[in-house]
Amino acid sequence: MANEKKLVAEITDMEKDFPQWYTDVVKKAELADYSSLKGCMIIKPYGFAIWELMQRQMDDRIKATGHENVYLPLLIPESLLQKEKDHVEGFAPEVAWVTHGGENELPERVCVRPTSETLFCDHYAHIIQSYRDLPKLYNQWCSVVRWEKTTRPFLRTTEFLWQEGHTAHATDEESQAETIKMLNVYAEFCKNVLAVPVIKGEKTPKERFAGAKATYTIESLMHDGKALQSGTSHNFGDGFAKAYGIQYTDQNNELQYVHQSSWGVSTRLMGALIMVHGDNSGLVLPPAVAPIQVIIVPIAMHKAGVLEQANELENRLKAVCRIKTDRTDKTPGWKFSEYEMKGVPIRLEIGPKDIEKHQVVLARRDTGEKVTVSIDGLEESISDLLKQIQENMYQKALKNLNEKTYTATNMEEFEEILDEHPGFIKAMWCGDQACEDEIKELTGATSRCIPFEQEEISDTCVCCGKKARYMLYWGRAY
Amino acid sequence: MANEKKLVAEITDMEKDFPQWYTDVVKKAELADYSSLKGCMIIKPYGFAIWELMQRQMDDRIKATGHENVYLPLLIPESLLQKEKDHVEGFAPEVAWVTHGGENELPERVCVRPTSETLFCDHYAHIIQSYRDLPKLYNQWCSVVRWEKTTRPFLRTTEFLWQEGHTAHATDEESQAETIKMLNVYAEFCKNVLAVPVIKGEKTPKERFAGAKATYTIESLMHDGKALQSGTSHNFGDGFAKAYGIQYTDQNNELQYVHQSSWGVSTRLMGALIMVHGDNSGLVLPPAVAPIQVIIVPIAMHKAGVLEQANELENRLKAVCRIKTDRTDKTPGWKFSEYEMKGVPIRLEIGPKDIEKHQVVLARRDTGEKVTVSIDGLEESISDLLKQIQENMYQKALKNLNEKTYTATNMEEFEEILDEHPGFIKAMWCGDQACEDEIKELTGATSRCIPFEQEEISDTCVCCGKKARYMLYWGRAY
Repeated sequence: MANEKKLVAEITDMEKDFPQWYTDVVKKAELADYSSLKGCMIIKPYGFAIWELMQRQMDDRIKATGHENVYLPLLIPESLLQKEKDHVEGFAPEVAWVTHGGENELPERVCVRPTSETLFCDHYAHIIQSYRDLPKLYNQWCSVVRWEKTTRPFLRTTEFLWQEGHTAHATDEESQAETIKMLNVYAEFCKNVLAVPVIKGEKTPKERFAGAKATYTIESLMHDGKALQSGTSHNFGDGFAKAYGIQYTDQNNELQYVHQSSWGVSTRLMGALIMVHGDNSGLVLPPAVAPIQVIIVPIAMHKAGVLEQANELENRLKAVCRIKTDRTDKTPGWKFSEYEMKGVPIRLEIGPKDIEKHQVVLARRDTGEKVTVSIDGLEESISDLLKQIQENMYQKALKNLNEKTYTATNMEEFEEILDEHPGFIKAMWCGDQACEDEIKELTGATSRCIPFEQEEISDTCVCCGKKARYMLYWGRAY
Repeated sequence: MANEKKLVAEITDMEKDFPQWYTDVVKKAELADYSSLKGCMIIKPYGFAIWELMQRQMDDRIKATGHENVYLPLLIPESLLQKEKDHVEGFAPEVAWVTHGGENELPERVCVRPTSETLFCDHYAHIIQSYRDLPKLYNQWCSVVRWEKTTRPFLRTTEFLWQEGHTAHATDEESQAETIKMLNVYAEFCKNVLAVPVIKGEKTPKERFAGAKATYTIESLMHDGKALQSGTSHNFGDGFAKAYGIQYTDQNNELQYVHQSSWGVSTRLMGALIMVHGDNSGLVLPPAVAPIQVIIVPIAMHKAGVLEQANELENRLKAVCRIKTDRTDKTPGWKFSEYEMKGVPIRLEIGPKDIEKHQVVLARRDTGEKVTVSIDGLEESISDLLKQIQENMYQKALKNLNEKTYTATNMEEFEEILDEHPGFIKAMWCGDQACEDEIKELTGATSRCIPFEQEEISDTCVCCGKKARYMLYWGRAY
């Protein structure tokens, strides 16, 4: 069985070479593949099924908070992109330019959307006239293109899938409340669906989205101690409204500019899922996004009654979980390894002896534990176990995040942490970009966020020693 | 109320100006809007909600027939597009070419996918080795771009949303069976979800998809007697497999080419929905795709108990239908017109007199009929009525299609039909493209399909008088 295991697995140990481990898991768990265009990936059936489960649960939350889905075009005329100065400066260097339609050169080149603020602003300028038209709470699911130099499946790809919410409000208070509301939706989704704990906070001015007044982020921590920006939410104030002329008449019949927000999460979350929960046997999926929650592996399949019992169990249990039976002629050992690789939360083993004793064996992917349970009331045993796994995975990830979060009061400590046991570093900051730049230059770490939950670690900036204004999370990041 | 009606409606009568009626409905029912890029539309919340309901029900069918969703890139390198000669000739004149990524000219230009055969072929060439890897049954939901000269919302736009299925099989029999299976899925979907009857048949060689061995189509008939190609399914044989080198070793360890199919439906189906069911008061939606199936309009809302009763009914009925209450201070007449425009299948009126009598009034959008029913057992009354409406809409559309289907045995009859009462024309054909070309030249009508259900109308070609081989459906088309 050791050999079979190796045959299926063949993944590098994460302690040995984490990037290679990641690539191996993406490939062997059949999540994604490379395409013939550098930087663009193919999302394979198993990977896409996970994404669909994430998408459905996120979409439910977006709709439950009053938002409506729409679809705006893929292509943006250059003149439209250029209306907001900071925004175009941020995105122009990485957009794909379409110059020809068939044989004909276009009168004006258009870019493939890198994000859709400009399109939503243009649309809002047409459809918003009165305070009665506000708020507008739109969202769209689509793909965007940013010409990236270095790419890795799910983490950074030239094209990726995402949702982008774009809203318009009467006041800055409302757009700020919306911005924070959606950040909280993202954090709750990460916790309860992905079992991924996150740090919520505000980005420093340097790390703000191009054109935003304030950018908020959720940051998660990977097994290798690197941070992953997992979702962002921006308050634009009235900056875009002024650039695009989005005005409404208020109750006093006076013209006002709207205040806007935008927020997005992407297929990047697949990267978090892999790197927060995965282990040296492959993927470990939280039940909420597992395309197969329970895999039935019949033991001694050729023996009388085994397949019949497996079929009966599958039929009974499909009312309470996503379940499948592997009826192929591969050995049980091979199957064990394959579904471990794919991160299936529960393996249900049923063989002649189990049938005799009216029981099954349940093996948990998250802990490796095996329990023997009665066939009676199996619906409840499975439902309970799935809940336990979901909760345990979150607690385990939270423990890991807490254990890998350090404090530094000077640059010596800061560098020592990064070298010896990478993770989040909490350290004070004076508020000056020069210190942010210097830390990045020295250590490769970037400011992740000014967390909502502030602590006073010391009263001086970790870098320059001047009076500190904020406690920041720092880390090397994807 | 006549005035209010006009205020809300303001749509052109379809008998007066059908294209203008269509545009008015798209706009006033808030389905779509124009974007700043010519030929690209914005799908608005109400239109997108209809599309999501269509998409969900089509996706269920695609999965139920064993297909898996994947996501392949938006961009295709030029060299990849060019591998299949007919295919590139068909699509190159209408693709959008990306030449620059940011500031840098690309070493090879890439196009925005007009369809994804080339990408799936390239992927299949990598992942198919053995007969054990077959069949591959993939589908993707995405947007595609074709640079169109003349565009109309939903019917022909530069960018549109669709699903494209791409499959690979061991034999031609299997790919042919798959091609027909999915055509049947489309026809069943049109019938049971959209309440749209279709004619199933094969396209003539002239009308085949670029690179296909055979193209099959479902054709529907609009109110103005014009045909709409509503979905297509193609058998590629091994043509693409040879161009892209997609081979597998069979049971005898011999190398074989795979046989492939592809099939797609798009947001064009929204156009069919509008033009098959709509009337001079606006959209008429079949319950299966109506975002709001029942709209509660409280009458004399300010009177004691009315809003409370409306709320209670909404809470009770939301278990059996998609229901909403209009609590705004607009007049009931205004609301009646607005939800007629939006095609909501049932309007539920509740006022003080109704409450007294323990009843409500239900008004059907499809027939305009009103019935008074008891508040007891309203769940059942509503469910039954929604079923009746769905069925009635299909029967009405079928009757219309049958009444507008004519036969012609010579070109005089052919032209007379088109001039006096446009619709489908059944006529015999010799099989020669010259006759197809001549008919198009003379009348503007194109061959829609060689229907699976053949009839022998005469034994000579309607155009040249030579021996007939097939009965064809002809018509002017969108």
